Amino acid sequence: MAPLTDNLFNDIPSVLQEEFFQILAESETIRIERIVSDGHATPPGEWYDQEWNEWVLLLSGGATLKFDGDADPLVLKPGDHVMIPAGCRHRVERTDSRQKTVWLAVHFEKTG
Amino acid sequence: MAPLTDNLFNDIPSVLQEEFFQILAESETIRIERIVSDGHATPPGEWYDQEWNEWVLLLSGGATLKFDGDADPLVLKPGDHVMIPAGCRHRVERTDSRQKTVWLAVHFEKTG
Repeated sequence: MAPLTDNLFNDIPSVLQEEFFQILAESETIRIERIVSDGHATPPGEWYDQEWNEWVLLLSGGATLKFDGDADPLVLKPGDHVMIPAGCRHRVERTDSRQKTVWLAVHFEKTG
Repeated sequence: MAPLTDNLFNDIPSVLQEEFFQILAESETIRIERIVSDGHATPPGEWYDQEWNEWVLLLSGGATLKFDGDADPLVLKPGDHVMIPAGCRHRVERTDSRQKTVWLAVHFEKTG
């Protein structure tokens, strides 16, 4: 059988008006996604508040995350990964404006 | 709350007699793992035959995978990812012997 394969840095649109989301694999309990940001940030005053857990890895570029209630933002460089439990309010304060930021996000159902 | 964070390229032992496995996040239905290989390969004649699906991403170094029944092996470079469904027999023919190969593996329960 021919396995499904691709490269995370392939086929990135050169102009991104909005963040680019692409599902790489999924099942009933998980979704593996590539996200490409190009200077994008969460709109002012808005927070992500998700029902599923999210484990996220920054692969290129850079970003700053803010977690609700934390004084200090979290600055991410390539290779950095963060576990964001379901219900943990967070926002993307900044992504690199000089190069594209490629993320891998693994969303998975909250259990137990 | 302080989110759990680390870098995929941190804390890699300089000498690896065996492949290095580390769980980064897990639940009842998923396990996210860092694997570091240093010239390791699956022993001759052995195959992985897993009950869970595995989505794997090569982050540094290089490797060659072989899928049972496929004539051509699959050569992986950084950024390459492969979906290996449960029950798909495969082996690692080779990993780079000049530098460490860092993998991210997402194991998830077969559903449906």
